[in-house]
Amino acid sequence: MSDKNRIIIFDTTLRDGEQTPGVNLNLSEKVEIARQLELLGVDIIEAGFPAASQGDFEAVSAVAKIVGCGVAALCRCNEADIARGWEAVKHAKKPRLHVFLATSEIHMTHKLHMTPEEVIQNVAESVALAKSLCDDIEFSCEDASRSEPEFMYKVIETAIASGATTINIPDTVGYAVPGEFSNLISGIFENVPNINGVVISVHCHDDLGLAVANTLSAVAAGARQVETTINGLGERAGNCSMEEVVMALSTREPAFGINHSIDTTKIYRASQRVSAITGVPVSPTKAIVGANAFAHESGIHQHGVLSNPMTYEIMTPQSVGKTESTLVLGKLSGRHAFTDRIESMGYNLTKDEINSAFVKFKELADRKKDITDDDLEAILALITDVPEHYRLESFQIQSGKLPLLPMASVTLFGPDGEATEAATGNGPIDAACNAISKIVREEGTLASYNLDAITGGTDAFGNATVRVLRDGELHMGRGVSPDIIEATILAYINAINRAIARTKNYERKSS
Amino acid sequence: MSDKNRIIIFDTTLRDGEQTPGVNLNLSEKVEIARQLELLGVDIIEAGFPAASQGDFEAVSAVAKIVGCGVAALCRCNEADIARGWEAVKHAKKPRLHVFLATSEIHMTHKLHMTPEEVIQNVAESVALAKSLCDDIEFSCEDASRSEPEFMYKVIETAIASGATTINIPDTVGYAVPGEFSNLISGIFENVPNINGVVISVHCHDDLGLAVANTLSAVAAGARQVETTINGLGERAGNCSMEEVVMALSTREPAFGINHSIDTTKIYRASQRVSAITGVPVSPTKAIVGANAFAHESGIHQHGVLSNPMTYEIMTPQSVGKTESTLVLGKLSGRHAFTDRIESMGYNLTKDEINSAFVKFKELADRKKDITDDDLEAILALITDVPEHYRLESFQIQSGKLPLLPMASVTLFGPDGEATEAATGNGPIDAACNAISKIVREEGTLASYNLDAITGGTDAFGNATVRVLRDGELHMGRGVSPDIIEATILAYINAINRAIARTKNYERKSS
Repeated sequence: MSDKNRIIIFDTTLRDGEQTPGVNLNLSEKVEIARQLELLGVDIIEAGFPAASQGDFEAVSAVAKIVGCGVAALCRCNEADIARGWEAVKHAKKPRLHVFLATSEIHMTHKLHMTPEEVIQNVAESVALAKSLCDDIEFSCEDASRSEPEFMYKVIETAIASGATTINIPDTVGYAVPGEFSNLISGIFENVPNINGVVISVHCHDDLGLAVANTLSAVAAGARQVETTINGLGERAGNCSMEEVVMALSTREPAFGINHSIDTTKIYRASQRVSAITGVPVSPTKAIVGANAFAHESGIHQHGVLSNPMTYEIMTPQSVGKTESTLVLGKLSGRHAFTDRIESMGYNLTKDEINSAFVKFKELADRKKDITDDDLEAILALITDVPEHYRLESFQIQSGKLPLLPMASVTLFGPDGEATEAATGNGPIDAACNAISKIVREEGTLASYNLDAITGGTDAFGNATVRVLRDGELHMGRGVSPDIIEATILAYINAINRAIARTKNYERKSS
Repeated sequence: MSDKNRIIIFDTTLRDGEQTPGVNLNLSEKVEIARQLELLGVDIIEAGFPAASQGDFEAVSAVAKIVGCGVAALCRCNEADIARGWEAVKHAKKPRLHVFLATSEIHMTHKLHMTPEEVIQNVAESVALAKSLCDDIEFSCEDASRSEPEFMYKVIETAIASGATTINIPDTVGYAVPGEFSNLISGIFENVPNINGVVISVHCHDDLGLAVANTLSAVAAGARQVETTINGLGERAGNCSMEEVVMALSTREPAFGINHSIDTTKIYRASQRVSAITGVPVSPTKAIVGANAFAHESGIHQHGVLSNPMTYEIMTPQSVGKTESTLVLGKLSGRHAFTDRIESMGYNLTKDEINSAFVKFKELADRKKDITDDDLEAILALITDVPEHYRLESFQIQSGKLPLLPMASVTLFGPDGEATEAATGNGPIDAACNAISKIVREEGTLASYNLDAITGGTDAFGNATVRVLRDGELHMGRGVSPDIIEATILAYINAINRAIARTKNYERKSS
């Protein structure tokens, strides 16, 4: 196939995906996800919104320095945002500035308080400014699917005349339906005089469950960049899932005639990695990457698959890199075997990170016979740059059916040395959290709590994810242990450490 | 709008949805889901596959007797299946037999081992037999989207000539893309001579994330029945989500011009109920019913929504019945307040069920200050007809960081009276499960484990879901308690009781 049928995969897991409620990634987590995206073969990583906060700025800079693929920074149409965005991405091998302004009546009136003429002028000035700094400029008409097409054509023409080389058409509120959305794209090709040579991009949200279909309908109409996230993370119901759109294009290649750069055999691992890092579970029925996606339940289906897998399978689990989680390591495995294994899983850790991970691995391997790839993923998701302001030294719990009162004692090592407290509670977790609150002398509210066994068996690792609400911000914490109480206590302490690490003046994430 | 624009919602949560791996519903759970579906306003409930097992047969019979909407029974093209299907649905106010046979080359060759001529003859005979028993006959061309259209037209013509009044076109393997799928439907209207007056139905799977889009594209081409499940449950990546297709039709009504019978304000509650009963969590980013579906994370979005909700919202949470979970009851609430509340939530329980639920409510209300609707949902999901072969009398656990060895003692009341055992383990759960295994003297493998806090705060209820593998079958168990250890022990015992209750000769679910 010729180049004109090659689609550009623009990944926004680190920008729109990070806007998933309850997700707050730190620098090393963003860098780790960026590494996975590069391994996967995405063309461009939207690494963040540098003007939104110091944390976002630093993350975009860090990603720009380490990956070889394109790196985009999101900016509103103003000088400060664009300057800050350029400062963050300028070290990238292939930097891009992504400038956006809303073009719908409702957004211009109620949010921007700007007239259509002011919008056009602002676009002209902002895109020209961005172009003076960076060759590769993407412009987005926010809320495009609810914009008046004739006006939007003018905005697009202005953006291109001012230097934009990619025009993005977002279905910001997940309102579009496929036929309509492909007409919108065709309309742009037909009505914008200077569209030739410019890439049309789409960015779809899944509020009506149509993000993938809208994206594919736009590709059929000539769009050649798609903005997606791993696992469909993002605002509200999320963005178009990378794995779904890519596997639709690959599985039905003759129907679409489109090629892409993704190594599909790395999809499953990337999905698992992003889920572990963000703490957002993947639904068992999620297409492509869900636990059930390749499971056949009914007798008739199982019989068919045994006769010929293609009776009920249109793609193989191997094509997305999903293989049985194998027993890979045990408590006798040494550092060398450990390092080899995690490298083959696509990790590229510093010596310190490997040391820290190896200590955790040995601790856990003492308590669980076989360590699988999935277990390793959970251990490695704990390797972050959050300083251990407080560290769990020991704990003891005693609990039972009422009238026995659950009781816990916890010993933490903190900035003031070792401290022990005991408390009662509704259950042992409540008791342990009460004891911890006495030690750290500040309380967050436990806003959500989830615990999953990573593999089967009563000696499976428990993977606890908590979110603690403190000063209006949610802070995630994770803990892994074969003892679910310990996993939960570790997750609670991790969330407190993350809350402490977070810059006090951190502004709200934006866009 | 005229009747010709009214779409029939055919719900298959109890049939295809129950084929979700790990989901095994018992009779009272199926009846409860059927009640919810009727409240929601679905037109037809596919209640099961009566020939698959005695359990399925009884569930279809029970549903047929209690609901006023249509009830369908699935049958293969053979006499035994059709007779059994009719036996199960004949008491329904509006019974339907749903007969299916595969029409794709790959299914006929590798699964059916039948020639195309044999398939046509089998369809003619089976549909005629079904018609001799029941007026309302649906025929499905299994794997329609991979069938040779000319052959499929002949099969459809035969089915209609033999008495079928609804023809279902399933995308059995989730292979279709929207444009192609709507062409398939148009092709049927154009090429099947006796299609006039027959309803065309579609049944889409989500393997490529396109189930909703394919369904809507078929409706645009004239299909007037859609087969869907709550939360998109079903084989592999699941079926078309009822909530997504209905809210797309409602939110974009002018674009589609289609009406339906669903009371959308009951969608959220039905989704929560089905999730609690099946033990399959709803992804936070799931469209319409996910926890994040109406959450606005970024500063720009929040600012917009405050100025005018329609800047970032295309439908309101209220339109799907999602309201803040309110504090509704406390430990002083009496039976009357309790009964009122659960009735207003759409429950219709027997006196015994209310008594049992009230006991659990009082037990839990003693240990948690405020009981919300969500808490009540979790309590009510425990009211099932599984006999308590074993019942938890008391337990005690002692645990802590190594080298302290986790230890548990458990006392169960069982068929042989009270028994107590103690054991150690990797963690307190492992220890408690080991103690229970000693008492019940048979062991299942813990295949999966999940624990969610129902509401925020460290005194939140823990909702534990376990799946125990025993004799090749997964048995789900659920437990609710403010103490997560107790919730888990209760879930484990519940799974054992369910495994025991299950007919020993239970056949594999089929289709």
